[in-house]
This record gives sequence, C-alpha cells and structure tokens, in this order.
Amino acid sequence: MVNNKKTGSQALVATLANCGVTHCFANPGTSEMHLIQALDKEPRIHSVLCLFEGVASAAADGFARISGVPAITLLHLGPGYGNALANIHNARRAYSPMINIVGDHATYHRDLDAPLTSDIETIVKANSSWIGVAETALEAGEVAAKSFEAATNAPNSPVTLILPADTAWTDGGVDGPNVIAKSPSLVTSQALDEVVGAIKAAQKPIILVGGAALYDEGALNNMARLAKAGVRVMIDTFPARQARGAGRFAPEKMQYFAEMAISSMAGVDLMILAGTSIPCAFFAYPNTPSILVPDGCVTLTLSERCEDTIEALQKLVDALGAVEMAAVVTAAQMPAPTGPLNPAKIAQSLSRHMPENTIICDDSVSNGFAMYFGTMGAKKHDWLALTGGAIGIGLSMAIGAQMAAPQRKTIALSGDGSAMYAIQALWTMAREKLPIVTIIFANHDYKVLNIEMMRTGAGDVGATAKSMLSLANPNLDFVALAKGHGVQAASVTTSEEFDEILESALASNEPWLIEAMI
Amino acid sequence: MVNNKKTGSQALVATLANCGVTHCFANPGTSEMHLIQALDKEPRIHSVLCLFEGVASAAADGFARISGVPAITLLHLGPGYGNALANIHNARRAYSPMINIVGDHATYHRDLDAPLTSDIETIVKANSSWIGVAETALEAGEVAAKSFEAATNAPNSPVTLILPADTAWTDGGVDGPNVIAKSPSLVTSQALDEVVGAIKAAQKPIILVGGAALYDEGALNNMARLAKAGVRVMIDTFPARQARGAGRFAPEKMQYFAEMAISSMAGVDLMILAGTSIPCAFFAYPNTPSILVPDGCVTLTLSERCEDTIEALQKLVDALGAVEMAAVVTAAQMPAPTGPLNPAKIAQSLSRHMPENTIICDDSVSNGFAMYFGTMGAKKHDWLALTGGAIGIGLSMAIGAQMAAPQRKTIALSGDGSAMYAIQALWTMAREKLPIVTIIFANHDYKVLNIEMMRTGAGDVGATAKSMLSLANPNLDFVALAKGHGVQAASVTTSEEFDEILESALASNEPWLIEAMI
Repeated sequence: MVNNKKTGSQALVATLANCGVTHCFANPGTSEMHLIQALDKEPRIHSVLCLFEGVASAAADGFARISGVPAITLLHLGPGYGNALANIHNARRAYSPMINIVGDHATYHRDLDAPLTSDIETIVKANSSWIGVAETALEAGEVAAKSFEAATNAPNSPVTLILPADTAWTDGGVDGPNVIAKSPSLVTSQALDEVVGAIKAAQKPIILVGGAALYDEGALNNMARLAKAGVRVMIDTFPARQARGAGRFAPEKMQYFAEMAISSMAGVDLMILAGTSIPCAFFAYPNTPSILVPDGCVTLTLSERCEDTIEALQKLVDALGAVEMAAVVTAAQMPAPTGPLNPAKIAQSLSRHMPENTIICDDSVSNGFAMYFGTMGAKKHDWLALTGGAIGIGLSMAIGAQMAAPQRKTIALSGDGSAMYAIQALWTMAREKLPIVTIIFANHDYKVLNIEMMRTGAGDVGATAKSMLSLANPNLDFVALAKGHGVQAASVTTSEEFDEILESALASNEPWLIEAMI
Repeated sequence: MVNNKKTGSQALVATLANCGVTHCFANPGTSEMHLIQALDKEPRIHSVLCLFEGVASAAADGFARISGVPAITLLHLGPGYGNALANIHNARRAYSPMINIVGDHATYHRDLDAPLTSDIETIVKANSSWIGVAETALEAGEVAAKSFEAATNAPNSPVTLILPADTAWTDGGVDGPNVIAKSPSLVTSQALDEVVGAIKAAQKPIILVGGAALYDEGALNNMARLAKAGVRVMIDTFPARQARGAGRFAPEKMQYFAEMAISSMAGVDLMILAGTSIPCAFFAYPNTPSILVPDGCVTLTLSERCEDTIEALQKLVDALGAVEMAAVVTAAQMPAPTGPLNPAKIAQSLSRHMPENTIICDDSVSNGFAMYFGTMGAKKHDWLALTGGAIGIGLSMAIGAQMAAPQRKTIALSGDGSAMYAIQALWTMAREKLPIVTIIFANHDYKVLNIEMMRTGAGDVGATAKSMLSLANPNLDFVALAKGHGVQAASVTTSEEFDEILESALASNEPWLIEAMI
C-alpha cells in the first residue's frame, strides 16, 4: 500500500535501513536538508558528521572492509563528490561496497546553471560501478534498493545515487524491496581442472591470491596447505584486508618495486591468479618492466574477482590432496625497545602492546614495509592497506573500521604528508569518542617521493625540487593539530617514551595521537 | 631547430614560461617527478608546495583573479584532480584562467590497471573547457601552448593538460609557440542598438553586470552614469572580483534569497544582461521561484560573457548621452567598536584598519552579508566572492591573491565550517611567509544550514539533524590549529580585543589568524 505521506528521502532512508545499512558518513549541504531530516527519524541508521567529504568516503570504506556492509555517504552536489573522490577511488580499488548519495538541485532547477550546478553524472562515472538518479519521490525507494544491490554485487564496489532536492522533499515515496547481498559465483570445474593440471606439470608454480580469501581463516589454512604442497603462495601488494599475526599462515607479498618483484620470481613458470588479476608495477619507470610476471611464466586464472575464491581454494586443495599445512607464524617475544625512535622500534612496540584483533589502517607510505614486517609476529590482527595509492586515507578509514567493530582496537598508521590530506578526521574521532590510536610518522618529508625521484632518474635534485618534496619549513606540529581538533596527543623522540605512551594510549577509551619523531 | 636534449616536461615548462606563466601551485607525486625537475631549472616559474590539492587549485584561482594570468597546478593522477575539483569548480564559475597539469602513468602503463589508474579524462571533463593529452615528448610544447590559449580564451576558464610520465621523461621536446591571450570580442552594433532602444522605451530598466567590468574603474564610472540616467545598476550576487570602497560607485547586488530578489525588483520591465546570464536562485525551495526575473520583465543581452563588457558599457553610455555620474561612496568614519564581538563589529574594525587596495577573499558564508555591507565605506579594495558555492576556498584563494600582488594586503574571511575543508592552506602561508590575515568566524555551527533547514521546510529539527549541522562537541580550537601549521594566532571575544589584534596583524609581515568568537 502506498503511504503518500512519506517523502522521497524518507522512502530512500527506510529502504536502505531495511536492506541492512546502519551507518551514514555525512557532510551535508542545503540540497540534503530533507535527507538529514529523514535520517533524523530513522533510528536504525547512525549519522556521523565529517568536516570534509574525503573523511566520509574513507570512513565508509573502512566500515565496509570490516563489516562487509555498505555505509552511505552524504555528499553535496558535484564539488562534494569531488572532495570525496580520492578515497572513493581507494574504495573502488578495495572492492568495498559503498553507497554515495549525492544531493542535487531540484529537477526543475538543474538547467538554470546555478552556481553549484555541475555535471554530477560525469564527475562520478569513473568511480561508480552504478549510477542512479531518483527522478521522482515515487521511485526513490526503488532506486535506493537498486543502489544497495549494485554495491553488493560481487566484487563489491562504490555506487552513486543522485537525489534531486524535490525528489527528497516531495510526498509519494514508497519503500523499495529488501535486497539481500548476493553470494559470489562459483568457479567452473573446467577452470579448476586446468589449474590442477598446470600445477602438477609446473616446475615452480606460484599462486597469487587477492580479495576476501585473505581474511578467511579457512582460506588461510588452505594457502598453508598449498605452500606445503610446493605451490608458492603470494598475495597482492596492497590488499583491502589481510588477517595475519601469530598462529596464522603468512603468505608472501608481491614486492612493490618491479625489478625486485621480478627477480624474486626468477624461474617461476606458472602463476595462478585467485581473486585477483595479472600483477603490474605501481608506477612505470624508465627501462623497468611494468608487468610483474617473469619471462616464460604462464598465467592462469583460478577465480575472477567476482567469483568465490575461498571455495575455489578449498576445491584446489582437495583436488591436489594437500592435507598438511606449512608452518604458521609463531608469536614474537619482543623486548622493550630502547634508544632513538625509528620505524623498526615502533613496530617492536606495536608487537608488544597490540591487543588481539586489532585493526591496523595503514597509510604510512614509506614506513609501511618496516611496520608490516615488524608486526608479523604480533597477536592476530587485520591489516587494511592503501589499495588505490591515493594517500590520505588512514585516519579517516580508522573511523569506519572502529565503528564497524566497537569492541576491537583500531590503530591508524600515517605518514605526516599523508595525514595532512584529511587531518579533519581527528575531529570526528573526538566527537564520536572513538578510541583510535593514530601514529604519525613525522619525518617532515614526502620521503617516498625522494626515493621515487631517484628511481625515476629525474636527475640531480635542485633546491626547488628538494623543497617540493619536503614538509619542513615550517615543521608541522601534530600535537597542536590534534589539540585543535579535540584529540589528546603526545610527541615522542625515544623508543622508551613511545613504548610507554603507546601502552597507555591503547588502554584509553578516547582517541589518541602520537607524533613519532623519526 | 629541434633541441633533442630537452625532455617533454622541459619543453612544456619552457613553453608556459614563454607564454607568461609565473606560478605553479603543486602537490606532486611520483608521476610528476620529471616535471618537478623541469620546474627546478626554470627560474621564471615560482613553485609553491601545497599539502592538499584543493589548496593548489584555489590558490591558482586567487592568483588569476588578481593578475589575470593563469597559474599552473600540478596534480597527481585522477585522485589528485579529485582533491582539487571543488575549487576548480569555483574557478570555472569565476571564469578564472587556470592550467591544471595532471601527471598520468606512462602511456604504455595506462592499460595495466595499476592501483592509481583512473579515467582522468572523464573525471576532469565537467570542469575543463579544454582537455589535452601530451602523448609524446615531441608534442608536449605544442600541447602546453594550446592549454594556455584555451585557458585565456574569453571568457577565461580552467583547462586540463594530462602529462603521461614517459612524455615527461623522454627527450625530443620542442618548445611550443608563444601564445598571447586574446582580447574578448566586441559587441555587435545591432545588440547595442536594441538595448538602447529598449532602455529608452522601458519604465523601470535594470542592467545586471558581471565579469571584468566589476573591477574596471572606467566601467564603474560608466555604471554610475547609467544609474544617474535612470538605469538601475545591479551586479551578480557572487562576483569573482569587485572593486569597491570609498570613492567608487556601489552597484546594487542581486539578492541571495529568491523571494527577496524578486520583490526588490517589483515593477521592473527590462533587464539588460552585461557580461552575465539570466539570474537564478542559488538553490530551489518548495514554492519559491527559481528564475530571478520578475513577471512581465523582458531580458535582453548587451554582452555575452565572452564579449568585452567594459567597451560595451562605454558605448551604451555614449549612445544614451549619459554624462553625469551618480554619487560614489563616501569614506566611512568608524569609531572603535566596543562590547561583545559580532559580524557588524568585525566589519567596523575592518573599515577602520584595512589599508588601501586590500584584497578580501570572502568565504564567510552566513556572515558574508554583514561583512560586505559593513565595509562599503572602507578604503578602496577588491572583494573576491565564493563564485561556485563550494565552501572551503577562502584561505587558499588568499595565497594566490597575495602572491599575485605582494605589495597589497590580503585578508581571508572564513566561516569555521568552511575553513575546515582546506585548513592546510595555513602551512603554505607560513612557508611562503605571506602576510595574509585570516579571520575565522567561530560560531561552532554550519549556521547557513540552520537557516536553509528552516527555509527548505524540512520540518522540526530533531537531535540528530541538529547535531549534523553543528560544529560543537568538541569545539575546534583555531589557535591550536594555526600553531600546528606554523601560523601565529589569537582568539578574541570582545570588539576591543578584535580591533587591537586586527590592527597589529595587518601591520605584520607574517601570516596571522584571528579566531573571532561570535
């Protein structure tokens, strides 16, 4: 029965709540006022205010990576989406479900070329697997259901729902159908047979795994079985989420630098792709290969990203009769670090103090390698990487991850340069009282760019170029920045101090920022 | 003669410097390393590092509004452009020339779908009047010249030049031609005659003026002549730049709220458009008109945005024989303000202390009206408005405006909410030692949204909705935020304090931030 007293925005919000949406990360404007009112009346959805749209999109990504459920973002016309775009790009690369709701002018106002008018459909296109416009209140509920369906269709992805203001405010809304996220499809027996045959015939086979298998305990065990059976197990360099730590099998990561990746795979004659695609270098460099497959190596797909890799690995293990598992990681027994602070010491402290099931949101760029390897033997935890290379996601992603798992501890690792893309995340942490610990690697440099400058062979680095890669002059003061956003903070220069502050920050019920002077 | 020892990026940079480009606002990444090296060797272009791309695009906009010359921005692939997009939108609405250089993957790397790969051409489309891809080093110089030509083609606009990394690093670059910005075309005598006839026949004519005429002394005098001759002179609500203050004619602004705009024009039977288009409401509201032309009023175009409105006004004045001028604004004699601080008192202090030729970058949103009217009788100054409605431009635009006119004083007016979109601008002010005075209107609210919530009729404001429009809990501490970025600051609550701090901040050679608690 049509409830004509429901506005378009009320039908939209009710439909998404019926589908299971629980969180909205918002930076609203005038065109979204009725949507805000509809959310006000919907107790099933928790609305979270962000000072900048890039915080909202990264938070929705973090939420999805931990919960598997899409959050909605609320963005103000084309420019609002623009501000969110970089982290939607990262979410697209993470295959995170996400429903970006973009408020637009009223339908009859769109053609008048008002100051905020822009071609929203074109702006969102590159980072939306689906775009829907709710042209009338009547269809708002149905479009909302379709947005949920599209976002959760394997492999998951960000989608965009454009909501004109008059659709939002007009009566005549009707709830759309309840949508249940579809399971990924199963791999064909033909693909499986081909892979089994190729592995048996290969001298040095590799399996490269991506997607949800990386945080499935059964799949990790099956990777350990494959490893024991002589198949080298590798994973994507920057996975959306990886379950790791003591007691779990540790697959090898595809190396970041092309020449190292290639030489580490010398002699490999078969690369099986499971839930991922042919690996390529992050950037091209003069005289360096772009495709990370050694000469003479054949690639073969076990499962596409839209297929069920967890089930495919089980079938592969069964077909190969691989029962025994390779060794899992043993718990590291780390002494308290001493002396001047550096990334290795920070990793040492983290290994000592991270509670079980910690979520690490890694945006530490050039320090990421040291952090990743240095925490290998820490208690079981999840590692969320920067999937799309658009730095600036760490603090904001932690907001969503923490809200998806309030009982777990979330740690954001961020370079100083990357933190400054969306430092406003700190305010939302304070407002929502999220006990996130943010660690800033304060080297006062775009350090990775100094490395890249050498690698790209751009020649001698003059004063101007040097200054364009440096964050010094003046140095940022992250303790003051945290205070300005309402977050407690400390700046530390020794390993002893860091170890002590980290322990107490992890025990706190409030957000904490540690500026690690390295 | 071809200098084959020049790389594509060197040819590009040399060509733009030859055309007259002097400033580059950059947030570079790996794909732009060779461009950074080329800039390092080009003494005619000053490179300015920004911590966030939205600072770079707003700075380029501010630079263009004051100098008339396009600056270049340096952005890192699709996500980098995304971060800059909101302020490029504002620049498009300001008709500011701007050359956005987006570094892309090497041509042979684009199809591999690396993490940072995205469909750049689609992302930039809505906010670029021209898009060029420098596919080879050989054509990089020519594409650069074309980008300059396109950006400075009346009415000016932002353009996008996509530079693949291998074009940037490969030898074989050739400088493109020197391009001289074209003058806008002249209005036809037919259009002029029609307007003259219509004005003579009208009972209550209005002329609505936009564009470069608003900061041309001769055009302002001609507007005063038209006013004296009985043509009511109005200007766009949010002009890119307006020259105003004591001794200048003060045209009337088209009002922001539609119903007020319409009722203020009751009985008007003719609206002449000069360098602008038919006015429309900023947002649509239920039961409120969208087009700001009263019933029965005819609209007629004197000059399009791409035409020479300054010259057209001169011809119109000549044709009407309008010699005498309406009165200009007399200098305000303001006493020192006393008592609790409010926007009117802030305007009073500004009127007292602003030196001649101050540049005001206005992003003060709901406080903008009080500031604009309260400074009408201040010394001559330029007012740069938020042209595209994407809040968050003020501090960053001031960077570019100040660099375009080092001998003038620049003041950024910003809401607390709007400042938080790109607060990172403060660091670039500190690094470049720009004596900008930033005034933050700290009402701890998205105050304009509270007004809009009422106006859109979204109904009673519940606790969640209220919290989504509030910047309280916790309050932002702008003095700490400024300190964190290396900028001196003070928080003031009384008019006396504000007046004193403003005077000393304006006398300083370094950036200053004043948190005005209103």
